[in-house]
Amino acid sequence: MKAQIEVATHTRAEMIDVTQNLTALVKQSRIQEGFCYIWNPHTTAALTVNENADPDVTRDILAGLERFVPRNGDYRHAEGNSAAHIKASLFGPSLQIMIEDARLVLGTWQGVYFCEFDGPRRRRLQVRIVPLPE
Amino acid sequence: MKAQIEVATHTRAEMIDVTQNLTALVKQSRIQEGFCYIWNPHTTAALTVNENADPDVTRDILAGLERFVPRNGDYRHAEGNSAAHIKASLFGPSLQIMIEDARLVLGTWQGVYFCEFDGPRRRRLQVRIVPLPE
Amino acid sequence: MKAQIEVATHTRAEMIDVTQNLTALVKQSRIQEGFCYIWNPHTTAALTVNENADPDVTRDILAGLERFVPRNGDYRHAEGNSAAHIKASLFGPSLQIMIEDARLVLGTWQGVYFCEFDGPRRRRLQVRIVPLPE
Repeated sequence: MKAQIEVATHTRAEMIDVTQNLTALVKQSRIQEGFCYIWNPHTTAALTVNENADPDVTRDILAGLERFVPRNGDYRHAEGNSAAHIKASLFGPSLQIMIEDARLVLGTWQGVYFCEFDGPRRRRLQVRIVPLPE
Repeated sequence: MKAQIEVATHTRAEMIDVTQNLTALVKQSRIQEGFCYIWNPHTTAALTVNENADPDVTRDILAGLERFVPRNGDYRHAEGNSAAHIKASLFGPSLQIMIEDARLVLGTWQGVYFCEFDGPRRRRLQVRIVPLPE
Repeated sequence: MKAQIEVATHTRAEMIDVTQNLTALVKQSRIQEGFCYIWNPHTTAALTVNENADPDVTRDILAGLERFVPRNGDYRHAEGNSAAHIKASLFGPSLQIMIEDARLVLGTWQGVYFCEFDGPRRRRLQVRIVPLPE
């Protein structure tokens, strides 16, 4: 099954929990055992998995990244968003999550986040849900 | 094939080589060609691949991370382990490794590491070994 | 389908666009729907996806990494390339990219990069192109 998730971001750096979107797609797919694969096609954004209980965690992650990958630095790229490109490569463009008994296999505190590093923008994630081979 | 690897960590930050555990599971699966997929369900730990010859390499990786993601900083998360959450997202929650001729395809110096960033704790990794589709 | 990509690097730190190599292999595989999986077997190199339009982006990524993972630091590993090992774990050893309609699914500005962090060297990437299960 192929699907897309549309995300609108509202600030420059932001982590948006897309776990519920993925859960709904997995349910819709009716796939019992397989993998949920997510691709971020943007070069100044990324995907990650982290705690979704205390909102201070994502705040601290973004602040921590900003400290060692500052927005302004010895950069040459004329668009002025080199820090966002660096952060994108640090977190990575894709995730693959197991599906068992028709559910995403995530740890108790894990949520899936789309990470905006150069917003606000409209973004689109690619999702593919694939059953295990027989 | 589904399996779990239990890991007990003994210090706050630690890289534990789980290559042998995976090798044993691949052998047990009798799968000749496929993928070995590993998921870390914890938000203050991660998985990575790096050199397993000189133990100074993992020592230097942990020390290097600590330098630019210090334990104490401008963090708000009350549990005091925000640095561990940041490191978890930098290294990532999962790995997928090819299986060819019933063996993991790793480079000469590569080992698979569970990375504890907020220990000591008891941790559990999810492993799934999947054959290639016919 | 199994294949390899040989890469010769010419400086210590370098990002080499291998998108065309992958595109050619996907075409050669004649697989319409599936995944292209790439593994880097070296512990001082990595794979990433980032912008391939303005060459200043990769220059800035390498310079940014060098700033917070400096070549010389409090390292013990005798080979003197601990910074390269750290960078390798930050970017990661593998990528998996969707194939749809016999093409890699990449964003408009996305290219696939082999990242050399301890060159110059000769490197070899493992590629496997797998169809979706029926």
